[in-house]
Amino acid sequence: MTGQAARKSFGSDNHAGTHPDVLRAIVEANAGDAMPYGADPWTERALAELRRLSGAEGDAYLVLNGSGANVLGLGLLLARHEAVICAETAHINTDECGGAERILGTKLLTVPAPHGKITPELIARRLAGRGDEHFAQPGVVAVTQSTEVGTCYSLAELQAIKEFCDANRLRVYLDGARLANAAAFLGCSIADIARCTDVLSFGGTKNGAMGVEAVIAMHPAETANAKFLRKQHMQLSSKMRFLGAQFNALLTDGLWLRNAAHANAMATRLAAGLENIPGVEVAHPVQADAVFARLDPRHVASLQRDWTFHVWDESTSTVRWMTAFETTENDVDAFLADIAAVTEPSFT
Amino acid sequence: MTGQAARKSFGSDNHAGTHPDVLRAIVEANAGDAMPYGADPWTERALAELRRLSGAEGDAYLVLNGSGANVLGLGLLLARHEAVICAETAHINTDECGGAERILGTKLLTVPAPHGKITPELIARRLAGRGDEHFAQPGVVAVTQSTEVGTCYSLAELQAIKEFCDANRLRVYLDGARLANAAAFLGCSIADIARCTDVLSFGGTKNGAMGVEAVIAMHPAETANAKFLRKQHMQLSSKMRFLGAQFNALLTDGLWLRNAAHANAMATRLAAGLENIPGVEVAHPVQADAVFARLDPRHVASLQRDWTFHVWDESTSTVRWMTAFETTENDVDAFLADIAAVTEPSFT
Amino acid sequence: MTGQAARKSFGSDNHAGTHPDVLRAIVEANAGDAMPYGADPWTERALAELRRLSGAEGDAYLVLNGSGANVLGLGLLLARHEAVICAETAHINTDECGGAERILGTKLLTVPAPHGKITPELIARRLAGRGDEHFAQPGVVAVTQSTEVGTCYSLAELQAIKEFCDANRLRVYLDGARLANAAAFLGCSIADIARCTDVLSFGGTKNGAMGVEAVIAMHPAETANAKFLRKQHMQLSSKMRFLGAQFNALLTDGLWLRNAAHANAMATRLAAGLENIPGVEVAHPVQADAVFARLDPRHVASLQRDWTFHVWDESTSTVRWMTAFETTENDVDAFLADIAAVTEPSFT
Amino acid sequence: MTGQAARKSFGSDNHAGTHPDVLRAIVEANAGDAMPYGADPWTERALAELRRLSGAEGDAYLVLNGSGANVLGLGLLLARHEAVICAETAHINTDECGGAERILGTKLLTVPAPHGKITPELIARRLAGRGDEHFAQPGVVAVTQSTEVGTCYSLAELQAIKEFCDANRLRVYLDGARLANAAAFLGCSIADIARCTDVLSFGGTKNGAMGVEAVIAMHPAETANAKFLRKQHMQLSSKMRFLGAQFNALLTDGLWLRNAAHANAMATRLAAGLENIPGVEVAHPVQADAVFARLDPRHVASLQRDWTFHVWDESTSTVRWMTAFETTENDVDAFLADIAAVTEPSFT
Repeated sequence: MTGQAARKSFGSDNHAGTHPDVLRAIVEANAGDAMPYGADPWTERALAELRRLSGAEGDAYLVLNGSGANVLGLGLLLARHEAVICAETAHINTDECGGAERILGTKLLTVPAPHGKITPELIARRLAGRGDEHFAQPGVVAVTQSTEVGTCYSLAELQAIKEFCDANRLRVYLDGARLANAAAFLGCSIADIARCTDVLSFGGTKNGAMGVEAVIAMHPAETANAKFLRKQHMQLSSKMRFLGAQFNALLTDGLWLRNAAHANAMATRLAAGLENIPGVEVAHPVQADAVFARLDPRHVASLQRDWTFHVWDESTSTVRWMTAFETTENDVDAFLADIAAVTEPSFT
Repeated sequence: MTGQAARKSFGSDNHAGTHPDVLRAIVEANAGDAMPYGADPWTERALAELRRLSGAEGDAYLVLNGSGANVLGLGLLLARHEAVICAETAHINTDECGGAERILGTKLLTVPAPHGKITPELIARRLAGRGDEHFAQPGVVAVTQSTEVGTCYSLAELQAIKEFCDANRLRVYLDGARLANAAAFLGCSIADIARCTDVLSFGGTKNGAMGVEAVIAMHPAETANAKFLRKQHMQLSSKMRFLGAQFNALLTDGLWLRNAAHANAMATRLAAGLENIPGVEVAHPVQADAVFARLDPRHVASLQRDWTFHVWDESTSTVRWMTAFETTENDVDAFLADIAAVTEPSFT
Repeated sequence: MTGQAARKSFGSDNHAGTHPDVLRAIVEANAGDAMPYGADPWTERALAELRRLSGAEGDAYLVLNGSGANVLGLGLLLARHEAVICAETAHINTDECGGAERILGTKLLTVPAPHGKITPELIARRLAGRGDEHFAQPGVVAVTQSTEVGTCYSLAELQAIKEFCDANRLRVYLDGARLANAAAFLGCSIADIARCTDVLSFGGTKNGAMGVEAVIAMHPAETANAKFLRKQHMQLSSKMRFLGAQFNALLTDGLWLRNAAHANAMATRLAAGLENIPGVEVAHPVQADAVFARLDPRHVASLQRDWTFHVWDESTSTVRWMTAFETTENDVDAFLADIAAVTEPSFT
Repeated sequence: MTGQAARKSFGSDNHAGTHPDVLRAIVEANAGDAMPYGADPWTERALAELRRLSGAEGDAYLVLNGSGANVLGLGLLLARHEAVICAETAHINTDECGGAERILGTKLLTVPAPHGKITPELIARRLAGRGDEHFAQPGVVAVTQSTEVGTCYSLAELQAIKEFCDANRLRVYLDGARLANAAAFLGCSIADIARCTDVLSFGGTKNGAMGVEAVIAMHPAETANAKFLRKQHMQLSSKMRFLGAQFNALLTDGLWLRNAAHANAMATRLAAGLENIPGVEVAHPVQADAVFARLDPRHVASLQRDWTFHVWDESTSTVRWMTAFETTENDVDAFLADIAAVTEPSFT
């Protein structure tokens, strides 16, 4: 894309760069010496704000990327022998190269998840065999908010999962790589979501950061081993002030929420525009910064000549179009125009 | 340190900030969209230059921190059941929370290492029991250059280790978190060192970067699984252009070498000044950016009231004083003056 | 069951004891001292015969149980980062407590498997994403012969899988916990099956042994790390002569085949008898020593008052009835009589 | 040895066969069907007796070999990130191929151990860095009783270790592969030793069993995950009655103690005889079933022509001579005669 007559990428929210405020915060943090590994004022401020925002009685930990957050977050909750129940579509199941299995030695017990969401009923299906040593023993349920297919659990849905888990000796991990988008959609606070979890991640990178994620342990019990696991997982940054500074920028004056709300609005605008384009079918409710759509494979190919995006499922010709904090209305409208042109009956 | 009447830290080379050129490169890379996960021009340029500098016929991989580099580097070389021979003082043995064991399931077979350096003779001591299934089976020898105690292997010493390893079915991993300092001291190229290894890391962070390291596989054989292991190890950055940009800055006009040479010179200046201070004994040859010194524990305590540095070994009252790319002659001289004052017979 | 008016268990082929010939061989091996860890004549004889029977150019390794065989067998074939494609019903997926994930850090990529058997087409579905570091990378296909639902792959089916795997850089592991039953059913040699694999297990325990399994590496390449992995996997027996002696007995005069053929015949007799019993539906072709049947849950409960067997799938009221080398025709007939009585319309 | 004019092996206590009473118990357990995986009366009786003998309020678990016992025992006590403090000479450190590291991902923090025994003072040396995420975090202290060099901790020594560990948030694992020999030497009960531990193993194999070890968890807390870890560790035997029967025989009428006392007496007799042989120096107190001796390497070579034993440390020409439950006085005397002959000044 770089060096081209730049059309905005709809490939992923990580195709975008760093928000100017975040970049400014990084530059400003470059002020002489600082203690490493988090013992610096930028990190301390970020962690305090993350605890406040989430209502955590445990603690928060900055890590280097989304896989790092997920594997650490699960690691805080899993006994050595335990398995994880998650959606078939979960990022930990489909997009992390089997990292959770490799690093934690855990087994993922997947359930089909309509629109990317699991339910107490789906979780219950994987509980047969508990207590029998021949069967994998689920200890954690992992949910993603917003989900990998651009939907959001309602607070009631999350609450139902948490209550089910509490009643069944299961802990809840929430992959919040796009947590901000969910909060923006639901109009709720981070704490509203966080209280339905035991550990969650809060993604900075897809929200305008250069590269930083937080893992938040809601209760003191989950913090006992956290810093040691973070170090073993190679997620401890030495010049951590530059991670702290990124979150400080995102957490100042609600930049995280504005960025997410904007990206969501752009996806909504895209989806709204698609309603007028025959031959494009939206596959999932558009509740975050992604539009999943089915269209003729030939139209996909035509569009990909000029635009960057992923084919999500070749077998159903489903594509994923993602917006980001810096996607503009013009970007969306130009993309819509091309989609309309490509899919016009006369076009092919 | 921040917010204080700032005395330069002699605590570690990671107390320093980011070199201005590196920061500028990061800012400049924030130019619209870019493909993630390394498929961007900044990363591609950095990798090409890393391959060129090291003479690698394999490939280079950017990772997020030093532990990430070490564990990935070892992972490229180790069969599943194999052990690693390394110095007792090796960073992987003493400073990474047992991460290599946790992530790779490997055993570290340590050898005592005078001045932080191992030798073919020391390696040979750990080879008894090869082929016997009861004994851990060494497959890799790990060396650090420059070492954890501020010394450098000569090229002849490295070459002897490589030849011994080649003759004994062992591979060589070199922890190059401070590789630049060694090249500066030896007056050699990166390739001169790299050819004595199978896989090495090249540290950016302690050399003026914000946070990036490279893992370099010298031969194609070591690249087969590299990108998958990097992902599983949670070391794959999504907005990788910001890692690539850092290395681009360091590798432009030899900034990496100038930074290292300057830090080395400051350590040398410090060591030279110590010669005139009775009661301070330098513990290891000063060949990189660290001075290890033994002095009276009361003097240590006095100095630590005003200056930041680590006590390395309480039992021998040995301290570590590190310089960095941004340490100035004035910083060193002011520190020397205080050391002299503190250790003066009349002082205590 | 012990101490009761003993009705033969149809619960599993491991409810049976040890075949008298095996027990005699164990007793005879108790003759003074012997070198441990396999350097004894009993083990050497067993391994030679296992190599001969299977046509292996690699080697054979005795291990302590079926999970031990499976995890070691997979470990011989998997690169550190690789995943395993297997049937949803595979023992490694459903009955080993997530051991493969825990011990090998591998991910199991499951496919639905009609009658317990996978096919090249099913395998192909899990190959999307090869080479992309975000996706788990399959390296091994695991099949079970005879399968967990009492069916057998034909040699042509196995051959098709092997050819597909060879063409797609995949290795084949065959879980042969009931390999003998398959050979008996197919009327083929062990070698006929083994040549469709890269590594296989050959189960002794379910075939009349007290407790021993063999892992057979078909090619020298797979033997390089085998004995070290066996030791790390805690599968190296010290007084191994007592494992070797068990296989010697099984491999003498075809006892292994006679035991398997007898157990198969008893399952066939049971299935034949069921044809005359309305209300009992056989769920899978009966090709080994198990009969899977669906019947009214109330009838299941009635039968379990007197007989030992497992409900396989509560949701479909499917039960598993297994025979063993020491099941008699009388046992089967008595069981059939009770099934008929219980399921008689008037009975409930 | 088999097939030779059999001289008794002094190589290891696992060169011996199975005690006749154990073998008889195995044969008698072969009585029709039994529930697998430990739900049989033989196993239940053995576990009850193991709990009684050890005074455990937790539970006991039968496993398949010594490495299996050690790795499971440690696994019951270790948090995911924790390290183990042990003697350099510990079996887990020197003789298990790095299995603890491979399977548990733990790091072994070794201490030099005079006569194979560690002390609170030695343990304390490895506690620096607790709470600092860069350092491996010890969670368990592993001791061996009797030790790998044939010595025994006194009860006071064990008690001191346990008290130190309790005071320092460390748990105690005791490798009891030769626990019986220690109890015989100390004239104490198993419970006397067990109460100084949190988890211990009780070795059957070296005590006359065919192949079985017990892991005993002293408190309920350590039992929560035990059966799942045993399964994942591939240590769950299906026809477990044959393991239970072995322990039943050993635990009947104190056979375990008689076997151990006899083996100890034979080692004592050997050591006593050596006092009259110049040129042979006993290296460690003889308190169990092993004699470590230093003698001229040429004499070692001469002796090994006729006798089976291990050179323990080539550099000091130290050999290990082990007795077993079936070593006779005649065996010892014949061996002594040959040692005397070989080391006679005129002989070489």
